[in-house]
Amino acid sequence: MGKLYVVGLGPGDYDNMTVKADRAIKSCGSIVGYHVYVDLIKDRYPEKKTLTTPMTKEADRCRMALDLARSGETVAMVCSGDSGIYGMAALIYELRGEDREPEVEVIPGLTAACSGAALLGAPLTHDFAVVSLSDRLTPWETIERRLESAAKADFSIVLYNPASHGRPDHLRRACEILLRTLPEERPCGIARSIGREGESRELLTLGQLKDASVDMFCTVFIGNSATKVAGGQLITPRGYRDV
Amino acid sequence: MGKLYVVGLGPGDYDNMTVKADRAIKSCGSIVGYHVYVDLIKDRYPEKKTLTTPMTKEADRCRMALDLARSGETVAMVCSGDSGIYGMAALIYELRGEDREPEVEVIPGLTAACSGAALLGAPLTHDFAVVSLSDRLTPWETIERRLESAAKADFSIVLYNPASHGRPDHLRRACEILLRTLPEERPCGIARSIGREGESRELLTLGQLKDASVDMFCTVFIGNSATKVAGGQLITPRGYRDV
Repeated sequence: MGKLYVVGLGPGDYDNMTVKADRAIKSCGSIVGYHVYVDLIKDRYPEKKTLTTPMTKEADRCRMALDLARSGETVAMVCSGDSGIYGMAALIYELRGEDREPEVEVIPGLTAACSGAALLGAPLTHDFAVVSLSDRLTPWETIERRLESAAKADFSIVLYNPASHGRPDHLRRACEILLRTLPEERPCGIARSIGREGESRELLTLGQLKDASVDMFCTVFIGNSATKVAGGQLITPRGYRDV
Repeated sequence: MGKLYVVGLGPGDYDNMTVKADRAIKSCGSIVGYHVYVDLIKDRYPEKKTLTTPMTKEADRCRMALDLARSGETVAMVCSGDSGIYGMAALIYELRGEDREPEVEVIPGLTAACSGAALLGAPLTHDFAVVSLSDRLTPWETIERRLESAAKADFSIVLYNPASHGRPDHLRRACEILLRTLPEERPCGIARSIGREGESRELLTLGQLKDASVDMFCTVFIGNSATKVAGGQLITPRGYRDV
């Protein structure tokens, strides 16, 4: 019986991987993943076999990785960002069910809430909510309710999957919901292609965000009532009284 | 003029640091931080000067780091977990104000939401809210409102700072608020001393969590309506339809 590592790669560059993630991949015979993520790292591990599946074949990909591990291989299933946060770790455990074999180890990675916040300044110094705008697996009504609740409770908000080819207007719809509660001038930021070619950042207001152009490589940050821009950085003060 | 790196160490062990965090600390002359975090890493960087301040002196610590960088030093201010999420990065930017000097670079690290989730299984595969139970800098009423909103909108919830010497009963109070909305049997988990000596995990229900013993080295996870335990792991399914 082999072992299956579910590895969070972080944003995609080697520098933002953890020491443990790098070591786990080096110890494996095969790398399994969505082809975009496998392509990000395969040049660094040229001696490994790679197995990829298309984006919507998540369960097939996980079954393939579990089968390989059952057959005796040490396998790295790679995920961008964290392997748990919107990643494959839960699906691996779900498919393994009540069996304790093959052995599974989840190796966390930097999720875009952390890496995107660092690119924009420090917008997550206080309580925050993370919401995916993808309604492929979640009813839009649930997303809407979560956005509304998060705005009303003054959370900073991080939006994952703000757009894709199939849903180009989700960010606009999300902003319209948030603007029922939050002011137009609320400071926001977009982190694009974090740690990859074309990395960039944009600071803007919630009113401007409604019309911003985003794609699946963007992560969006909406400040709380204390968030401000200082020295070109988007920051949410924690509230230290002696500042 | 020197440079100030605000470095997220992750949970505390070398393996869970990023390649970039390790390289940044190696490039520095001095390490500045709360003594508990500096102690975690100083043996690995024995040639560095270390400067520490007590826990409640955050602004003094940041001013010391900024002054050192202004005097020409390359300085690493270290934070446990991520340097942005409840970390020092915002305070550094706030104290620097509209100046662009000294140069500041925020290097993100694994926050306890990621590392704790990996220890417990995969409880954060869907939308989640992060709430600190420390009322040192936040009115308890704000914390209460956020907990209530997160529960009503069916977020998974991560609790940071669930207790300290000065507020031993905050977790119980938080659970009482959550139990107004959520059932006693809701699956939960406690991650203790992640990546450090004494690391351990506990799966329990929300009803049991109310009476659980926690300290400042614990991170607490409360599942959403889909969260379950399978194969000894706390998992929140994303909802893939072909499973």
